[in-house]
Amino acid sequence: MAKTVEKKTKIGVLGASGYTGAELVRLLIRHPRVEIVLLTADRRAGQEMSAVFPQFSPFDLPKLQSIESIDWKKAGLDLAFCALPHATTQKVIKQLLSAAPKTKVVDLSADFRLADVSAYARWYGHAHHAPELQEEAVYGLVEIYRNDIKPARLVANPGCYTTCAQLPLVPLLKAKAIDPDEIVVDAKSGMTGAGRAAKEEMLFSEVSEGFHAYGVGHHRHMAELDQEFSKAAGREVVVSFTPHLVPMNRGILSTIYVRGLEASPEDLHAILLKAYARESFVHVLPFGQVPQTRHVRGSNMTFIGAAKDRIPGRAIIISALDNLTKGASGQALQNMNLMLGLPETMGLEQVALFP
Amino acid sequence: MAKTVEKKTKIGVLGASGYTGAELVRLLIRHPRVEIVLLTADRRAGQEMSAVFPQFSPFDLPKLQSIESIDWKKAGLDLAFCALPHATTQKVIKQLLSAAPKTKVVDLSADFRLADVSAYARWYGHAHHAPELQEEAVYGLVEIYRNDIKPARLVANPGCYTTCAQLPLVPLLKAKAIDPDEIVVDAKSGMTGAGRAAKEEMLFSEVSEGFHAYGVGHHRHMAELDQEFSKAAGREVVVSFTPHLVPMNRGILSTIYVRGLEASPEDLHAILLKAYARESFVHVLPFGQVPQTRHVRGSNMTFIGAAKDRIPGRAIIISALDNLTKGASGQALQNMNLMLGLPETMGLEQVALFP
Amino acid sequence: MAKTVEKKTKIGVLGASGYTGAELVRLLIRHPRVEIVLLTADRRAGQEMSAVFPQFSPFDLPKLQSIESIDWKKAGLDLAFCALPHATTQKVIKQLLSAAPKTKVVDLSADFRLADVSAYARWYGHAHHAPELQEEAVYGLVEIYRNDIKPARLVANPGCYTTCAQLPLVPLLKAKAIDPDEIVVDAKSGMTGAGRAAKEEMLFSEVSEGFHAYGVGHHRHMAELDQEFSKAAGREVVVSFTPHLVPMNRGILSTIYVRGLEASPEDLHAILLKAYARESFVHVLPFGQVPQTRHVRGSNMTFIGAAKDRIPGRAIIISALDNLTKGASGQALQNMNLMLGLPETMGLEQVALFP
Amino acid sequence: MAKTVEKKTKIGVLGASGYTGAELVRLLIRHPRVEIVLLTADRRAGQEMSAVFPQFSPFDLPKLQSIESIDWKKAGLDLAFCALPHATTQKVIKQLLSAAPKTKVVDLSADFRLADVSAYARWYGHAHHAPELQEEAVYGLVEIYRNDIKPARLVANPGCYTTCAQLPLVPLLKAKAIDPDEIVVDAKSGMTGAGRAAKEEMLFSEVSEGFHAYGVGHHRHMAELDQEFSKAAGREVVVSFTPHLVPMNRGILSTIYVRGLEASPEDLHAILLKAYARESFVHVLPFGQVPQTRHVRGSNMTFIGAAKDRIPGRAIIISALDNLTKGASGQALQNMNLMLGLPETMGLEQVALFP
Repeated sequence: MAKTVEKKTKIGVLGASGYTGAELVRLLIRHPRVEIVLLTADRRAGQEMSAVFPQFSPFDLPKLQSIESIDWKKAGLDLAFCALPHATTQKVIKQLLSAAPKTKVVDLSADFRLADVSAYARWYGHAHHAPELQEEAVYGLVEIYRNDIKPARLVANPGCYTTCAQLPLVPLLKAKAIDPDEIVVDAKSGMTGAGRAAKEEMLFSEVSEGFHAYGVGHHRHMAELDQEFSKAAGREVVVSFTPHLVPMNRGILSTIYVRGLEASPEDLHAILLKAYARESFVHVLPFGQVPQTRHVRGSNMTFIGAAKDRIPGRAIIISALDNLTKGASGQALQNMNLMLGLPETMGLEQVALFP
Repeated sequence: MAKTVEKKTKIGVLGASGYTGAELVRLLIRHPRVEIVLLTADRRAGQEMSAVFPQFSPFDLPKLQSIESIDWKKAGLDLAFCALPHATTQKVIKQLLSAAPKTKVVDLSADFRLADVSAYARWYGHAHHAPELQEEAVYGLVEIYRNDIKPARLVANPGCYTTCAQLPLVPLLKAKAIDPDEIVVDAKSGMTGAGRAAKEEMLFSEVSEGFHAYGVGHHRHMAELDQEFSKAAGREVVVSFTPHLVPMNRGILSTIYVRGLEASPEDLHAILLKAYARESFVHVLPFGQVPQTRHVRGSNMTFIGAAKDRIPGRAIIISALDNLTKGASGQALQNMNLMLGLPETMGLEQVALFP
Repeated sequence: MAKTVEKKTKIGVLGASGYTGAELVRLLIRHPRVEIVLLTADRRAGQEMSAVFPQFSPFDLPKLQSIESIDWKKAGLDLAFCALPHATTQKVIKQLLSAAPKTKVVDLSADFRLADVSAYARWYGHAHHAPELQEEAVYGLVEIYRNDIKPARLVANPGCYTTCAQLPLVPLLKAKAIDPDEIVVDAKSGMTGAGRAAKEEMLFSEVSEGFHAYGVGHHRHMAELDQEFSKAAGREVVVSFTPHLVPMNRGILSTIYVRGLEASPEDLHAILLKAYARESFVHVLPFGQVPQTRHVRGSNMTFIGAAKDRIPGRAIIISALDNLTKGASGQALQNMNLMLGLPETMGLEQVALFP
Repeated sequence: MAKTVEKKTKIGVLGASGYTGAELVRLLIRHPRVEIVLLTADRRAGQEMSAVFPQFSPFDLPKLQSIESIDWKKAGLDLAFCALPHATTQKVIKQLLSAAPKTKVVDLSADFRLADVSAYARWYGHAHHAPELQEEAVYGLVEIYRNDIKPARLVANPGCYTTCAQLPLVPLLKAKAIDPDEIVVDAKSGMTGAGRAAKEEMLFSEVSEGFHAYGVGHHRHMAELDQEFSKAAGREVVVSFTPHLVPMNRGILSTIYVRGLEASPEDLHAILLKAYARESFVHVLPFGQVPQTRHVRGSNMTFIGAAKDRIPGRAIIISALDNLTKGASGQALQNMNLMLGLPETMGLEQVALFP
């Protein structure tokens, strides 16, 4: 299964030893127009990618390098995916773009998602390390910002929870069809959303056969939700958001409780149907049907359902996506395709793996 | 490990081949003052209990019988647990109590939970088969109705979802501390809550590695919630309730969104702390801490946590229990203990099994 | 995501509502040279495929039909996959091939795997319904019988357990490098291997959080193993084979204990390396490394490892594949590609989905 | 649920923050004749046990201390359980017994299991730190060494894998009924067997939905197996042993392949039945039936089954236990009961938790 090396776009993946890194590699390997020429993973530098992710044993991939060891100019990347831990990213991208200003960057961390650097400082507890790049950064929720993304050099790929909440809510807020002060987002995520760091609370025996909420009242994803919901509504919006962990690997499901503003649940459904009629990666189910995470596993799809609540005037909206694909690396490739002038769906045709 | 037969209270379990039946047997085997003298399971009649649940192989237990074959008078039961499917139960208990009027009954089905037989008919689509018994039936949520349960002959054991929602909400509604029109209960249950019937949607490969909501807008448990919440609030209450299925065996977690009425989240927490200060099976965590289902697994405990929502004036209340224990068979034994004049916690001392 | 209909090879999937059916559809949807024109599912006839497998909602697919309703001649299939339950298959294929003799067939059941119809009768308890077709049928383990498969009209796709055991053992038996009387195959499978029939023992709560063996001493797959191992060894071979169920969806891992005949474990490894050096879907790991099922999940790969046993002269061989892909539907497409003269790997390029 | 403090035996648990520590506490809390007076956990010293294992929130337990801070003489323990990591244990027990020579000790680590200190040095790569205590130590497989354990001061609790393999094999080896040179033990364990250390390979997303072998050819448990099997057989025995990890929390299942020496599979079954006829914690299933780990979950039981292999003269023996209970902490309490002159089953009456 050797990959023949034609003249393809040169791609680097920074932070290839984490789960979003592996998902990028899974997708990029089969993308017909790009070539992975650089993989980094500081703690595993010098090793083969197959030592870190044995599923790649049958493939020829570059060895893992440390970020420090790279000469960005020489690397000649057309585009770099940055899948590094939050906070280290701003500095790395600053160096990369200063050495190789023509390289495009899709950043999967939260480091460039908040347009307001003071909001960043407030939520993350330290000043932004690259405020000048922040001004340039485009927020990469493709279905909403497609036209801004195409010419961008630096795209901030949205978070997984926030993508899952924004896709159903942004059209409803834009249409002023729901009360912005009455939104409850009860979100449930698989464990890959928590990354690959070795922490006691993420051990199999701590997680399997149980369920719990975390970050109740103060999860960092809220800053991103506030920003985008306020933009969509044209006024300040603060939503109630509670994340939970499900004993499964992949998938986020958001159960969203809303109150219609002179809009019935059927009206809300119609708004969503219309908003996504031409989208390849958002599928709105028939009214009353609700999605399951397993039916989007491994694909770049988001499924959205809408149903009546039994309380008059209220509706329940449920959205589901794969946190590693549409919630991270798949959406990152979608951004890449736009930035490189390629068809948006290229390399993202995977059908969901169920069962 | 033979069970020595002293003079003990005679217990029957009707419907012993289901999960709540197995949980009853697990608990009853080690209860020091009772003896299982009768087990029924229509489709498995004639078989040993160990053929249906091999974990009981080391124990001496009566063979499974069909309900039809039983002479209730001769059986001489002091108390019968009825763990039969909904709807068949009313007729069986009617026959049992007419033949053996001194036998006490704890019914684990929904058949006697709705005091209003017309509400029953509306939700279940057929007339109640034993309206005269319904009048006599006591709703068995022990922490709320303890004094009514003690002298009762027929107790309707509450549902698992409803126990999990009522324990945190009833004291708050009684105290008029929360807005009854703004309650959202987002509930998540393990798979044993769906019973042991062989259905495609409950197969391992349909359920594992995924998450979904069901019964959106119209779950039958709502009737029971309406009844009890309205009683607690002294006015009609309709809550938003959405159940979900978690790929795990045991446990229910309810994430409950409420708006305080001149009551801060801390006030709500204080009300709960006070309400359950002397209860053996309800434990209120320190403010801001939230429970996990795994920490009550296999025990009769309910853990409750309360935290601030980020929306001013709102709070998030989270409760967790084991749906088969406090949510069904454990609570049924708690009722039995009260009805038989035994210490309430007898036979229910199991410490949670984690990991 | 509408599929544009070019002039493609016409494919039918008989038995599309089961797991191997869904896996065939997943793979066929993205195969560039074929088109699904017919789907059958008797109990779900008249329904959309998306009602049975919601992951296909975004795709245009033919409605499900009953087998009885099909006019095979009119259907004009170039190739039919038969993913029906064992035993019904022989009759269906007989009818199909008699009405449409130019249609090619890949059968995923066990019905045509045993060349000796008397062996079939002995293992399955009834006479073979299509002995004349049995003579024509080619056993479809591609890596071993590639040249026989190319011209075949009817291919019997191997079983999942047997593929996983044969790929490592056939080359060793052919090379007379191991003692044929000392082979122990301890096999472990995910739950999709048991199919989608609603049976109590396959419910989530019966399967999760536990592990067990089944069919100890008398599993039907043994007939297929006996046939192929005897052929490879040139003498009668009977192996010890014990299947187990793992609480996971996909994957088979076989731990195989062998005694070398003047061949060290390293020699056995070298034989395997050489046998599969040019194969796209069999990857032999470096000596001493062992495979994990998760690293082949959703892909058509088989990973094989070999290591020393601590008993001198013995070796441990471990093989892993995805039971639905290389163990069933992926191998079926591999057979299809050969039979249609297409590149063998076409449409089978999926990289394993881990995590 | 306050524990009333009568005059009870004083127990300490060293290493209470690990899984075997938690399991000891779960069992000890409900033991009617003992009292937990000391809990240690170096990294969590100063914290409440409920901070480390929230299931203990409803119970009064001593705070966690560091081992260094303890004055063993003053502590006045009647018995200490030592659930510390391998290798640190020898020094700790040496200090404890030198300061408090009347304290009895049950050690759950591997540090005192090998009678031959040179074998210890060979397998563990360093000299034994307490050879004089090794001479005194008794190997605590209760069903085999009951009489030696009763008067012992220091008992080495057996390993989980080795308990599961020895219980079925020791009686067969003692009876010279099987060929000691033809034993294959294919063992599968749940994840709690790997402990609570935060390691990448033990994360939920690395473990769920997959299966693999590890330590192929060189697992340390083999030293313990060699010692005990050789003793039972009266000659040197080396078995083939391969451990695997199952995506579940609790349970070990060993599939054991043996060749009878003029003994049919039925004969082997009869030997096992007789050997365990009077044992409370070993249950031999009827011939041909095989055990499942889920049916012993949370209990101190071992289930053993025996069946014919299809190869004449060979048999398949399968044993199952809960690695944390009979495989570790339950057996440790069984040892404690014997050492304290209490009934062997006291505090170990838990019925298995299934589902």
